[in-house]
Amino acid sequence: MSTNRAVDMSWFAWGDPARATELSDSLRDLIARTLGAELRDLPPVDESDVRLPAVALDAAAFAALTDVVGADNVHTDSAARLRHCGGKSTPDLLRRRAGEAGTAPDAVVLPADHDQVEAVLRLCAEHRVAVVPFGGGTSVVGGVDALRGAFPAVISLDLRRLDRLVSVDADSMTATLQAGLRTPEAEQLLSAHGFTLGHLPQSYEFATIGGYAATRSSGQASAGYGRFDDMVVALKAATPRGTLDLGRAPASAAGPDLRQLLVGSEGAFGVITEVTLRVRPLPEVQHDEAWSFPDYATGAAALRRLAQSASRPTTARLSDETETFVNAALSGKSAAPGCLAVVGFDGTDEEEVAARRAAVTTTLTEAGGTPLGTEPVAEWRHSRFHGPYLRDTLLSAGVLSETLETATTWSGLLPLYEAVGAALKEALEGPEGGAVIMCHISHTYPAGASLYFTVVTAAGADPLSRWAAAKRAASDAIAEHGGTISHHHAVGTDHRPWMTAEIGPLGADILRAVKSAVDPVGVLNPGKLIPDPPHKGTPRAGA
Amino acid sequence: MSTNRAVDMSWFAWGDPARATELSDSLRDLIARTLGAELRDLPPVDESDVRLPAVALDAAAFAALTDVVGADNVHTDSAARLRHCGGKSTPDLLRRRAGEAGTAPDAVVLPADHDQVEAVLRLCAEHRVAVVPFGGGTSVVGGVDALRGAFPAVISLDLRRLDRLVSVDADSMTATLQAGLRTPEAEQLLSAHGFTLGHLPQSYEFATIGGYAATRSSGQASAGYGRFDDMVVALKAATPRGTLDLGRAPASAAGPDLRQLLVGSEGAFGVITEVTLRVRPLPEVQHDEAWSFPDYATGAAALRRLAQSASRPTTARLSDETETFVNAALSGKSAAPGCLAVVGFDGTDEEEVAARRAAVTTTLTEAGGTPLGTEPVAEWRHSRFHGPYLRDTLLSAGVLSETLETATTWSGLLPLYEAVGAALKEALEGPEGGAVIMCHISHTYPAGASLYFTVVTAAGADPLSRWAAAKRAASDAIAEHGGTISHHHAVGTDHRPWMTAEIGPLGADILRAVKSAVDPVGVLNPGKLIPDPPHKGTPRAGA
Repeated sequence: MSTNRAVDMSWFAWGDPARATELSDSLRDLIARTLGAELRDLPPVDESDVRLPAVALDAAAFAALTDVVGADNVHTDSAARLRHCGGKSTPDLLRRRAGEAGTAPDAVVLPADHDQVEAVLRLCAEHRVAVVPFGGGTSVVGGVDALRGAFPAVISLDLRRLDRLVSVDADSMTATLQAGLRTPEAEQLLSAHGFTLGHLPQSYEFATIGGYAATRSSGQASAGYGRFDDMVVALKAATPRGTLDLGRAPASAAGPDLRQLLVGSEGAFGVITEVTLRVRPLPEVQHDEAWSFPDYATGAAALRRLAQSASRPTTARLSDETETFVNAALSGKSAAPGCLAVVGFDGTDEEEVAARRAAVTTTLTEAGGTPLGTEPVAEWRHSRFHGPYLRDTLLSAGVLSETLETATTWSGLLPLYEAVGAALKEALEGPEGGAVIMCHISHTYPAGASLYFTVVTAAGADPLSRWAAAKRAASDAIAEHGGTISHHHAVGTDHRPWMTAEIGPLGADILRAVKSAVDPVGVLNPGKLIPDPPHKGTPRAGA
Repeated sequence: MSTNRAVDMSWFAWGDPARATELSDSLRDLIARTLGAELRDLPPVDESDVRLPAVALDAAAFAALTDVVGADNVHTDSAARLRHCGGKSTPDLLRRRAGEAGTAPDAVVLPADHDQVEAVLRLCAEHRVAVVPFGGGTSVVGGVDALRGAFPAVISLDLRRLDRLVSVDADSMTATLQAGLRTPEAEQLLSAHGFTLGHLPQSYEFATIGGYAATRSSGQASAGYGRFDDMVVALKAATPRGTLDLGRAPASAAGPDLRQLLVGSEGAFGVITEVTLRVRPLPEVQHDEAWSFPDYATGAAALRRLAQSASRPTTARLSDETETFVNAALSGKSAAPGCLAVVGFDGTDEEEVAARRAAVTTTLTEAGGTPLGTEPVAEWRHSRFHGPYLRDTLLSAGVLSETLETATTWSGLLPLYEAVGAALKEALEGPEGGAVIMCHISHTYPAGASLYFTVVTAAGADPLSRWAAAKRAASDAIAEHGGTISHHHAVGTDHRPWMTAEIGPLGADILRAVKSAVDPVGVLNPGKLIPDPPHKGTPRAGA
């Protein structure tokens, strides 16, 4: 794929594996002892040994695709196919390290613009070829798995050539960006106009604008800049039945908000090609500080008070006792007691930021917090996008380190935290050792917050089954205790079994009805997001 | 209807017509001279002279309805039918004053709870009876017109018995309210817990919680408290195919936000029976102040800077030169030059409000504003819900005074203002006199704002046609200049012809597909919101 403007991520790991540090023997021993498990290295096979299915795209479909995007932009080589076979969940990486590319696409297609995307979708519907939109390929829920559903062939529609800043409306403080832009490129283009998105998810370096919109991403500074779905003022999507151009005003009473139907639609309703986003002035003042709380409940109550107050920080996060201890240990520091919180402030005005900091200091102090200054935050800020590399380092050493997340109301938050933690513990304790289960709150709202769990456990003899059991137990606990099945990772294949619990059978019917309207043949990202209809003979909701 | 807990509004006017003041002869003469028109009184006929269609509900359907809600809660008397035949737009009032009830419902049905609503919807689908959900009956866009569509009969489903505060979650600062609660009752129930919604539309005294959600209402303090759709954390809706229970967390990445598909669905996708809303502490500090700007553009730029700043008022509005002049004249004051703006502050903390006021003062002063103190605001606050009564007073005297509204980005706002004003002027200037066209900005967002027009003109010989022509011209101008067809009045029947321009033919297909999923027979509020499918033979989007 010589035309790539963006560099592909590694086929078996996050980003550039050279950036994953080695695990020292002493740390490896410490982990093994902590988990009470023997560790067995899990190195990747040679790329040449990875099994790929034969290309199933027929000549007519291939010719039609090259007709639209040009022969240079249809790739059927193994390297391209392998790098588009799926995302970056731990199960994805485990399979690929073992030499299984799983469901690789038959071709990788790189359209140049919206019209080419629309033409590709139309011809794929005609030729019965499934289409998996591909942005940064950072999905951790199977969202970009090259599933073909009921179709003989599947393409990965890589949007990297849609990489333009289309326009900036400085008065309205909005910018229209093409879907294939990765965040650092988008930020560079916006900064020339004095603007930023302020969107800082862990996938920052690789994820794309279109992917953020399609999956309802949320970044580390969401308390100040909002979730990605909040930033969407308008969007343009291509479907096999034409174009959707949504959003004539920041707010409207002209019926249901169809923007919020496309946002989070994960490529199943259309391919988002352009997004008009709210932008903010580049911050001139930035300040972070750490706080300590005696326990998670006290810290959570403090974050709740911040989220419900008039003076909010830009970033607010709180680690539970275990995560606080482990993070300190990883930094080579002595463990601070209790729970560590981080609050950050972005602003354009020293005085405004100072006033906000003063108000936040009052709130956190009254809520039982102790200020720890800026020093403990430096490590977090420095390594904020490094988590996925650490996961690869651990995986090579036979340690699974995977994350999952949810959200609920403040009143339900601690019971949900306890229930999910207990479910994970129960699923992972056994002859293959135990698990370290950590959690943080990193996205807060007036009505509730997210919970982000990190689980560290020995890979064991069958790491895929081991993790699948833990994930299933956690997801069941989330559904049972009123959490949402995903706060910002999206649905993909992995959360799809819990979608009917999430939105009810009638909600699932609505998703299927919308899909039929925009994609009657069903070629758009089959097997993702939308639950299968109930079996024939199963009673339907209300019928 | 002896079981009514809430009092019906007048059948020919807003609220209680006794509250509409008389127009003095001198003011009537001034209006006639200003409009260059002769005025002809438009008094209502006697209620006994209003023509109502015969009741078309068949015996089986009637029996099934009484079976569900009890005989006391199915009303077929003329008084109940007349009071549920439609909403309160000027055309509605003109028709009724002339003795035409138009499409009165065959029965008014008062369910007690969600389960009864669902049972009624199911039996109406079975008996082919159209259902028009009815809250406060305050629609000004035909949203509660008792249209029967393709069905032999239609009922008005009055939700006034769903009037409970279901629960309060003080930690999460949310409250679950039933759909039939009017705002003053809802506020009274919430205030016992120390909370408020802060939702203050002009329809405050009569409109209901369910109606607000179904129409994406926005209140006068939206800058601080947000639009009603922003406040919705969860909702429950009954459909002929069962219940939708949406919203497990304040924010989620579990697919499209189906809450935002039901919000604004105007009874076409289901009947919203319960809404969980974000609530706020009752304000302990309230302060309003007036500002003057040399012209509308300068004032609009000032409001834009406020909306994009960190320190925002709770209320922000700006009248154009004409509205500023007319409001002053109506209060018996001499006309202030330029444009009047009002900013208001709600808070629980003197210091916080003082800091916000100081920041707003700096912003408005830098933007060219002159502070006028609190006195000019008192009149506005005192009469903020009185506008519809004034409209009735004028209507009796032969003067149409109707409103319409839109929203767009800040960069498009003034061109849209000019275009809509010019379209109205051109449509209304002629042998029957001219029109006074006023406008204010009353809802602001970082990316844009609303425009709210008030048009005063002589009723003329055929007031319905006269207003229809003006409304059509304004709506065409809105569609052509990038505005949304409604910012907070909703779609109903009146904006439906512009919905395909708003969301595109494929967006309209999506609405029809969702409707088929939840209401396959199509009994829910036919003829509202959703455009008719294109005629056979008309090419469809992308096909």
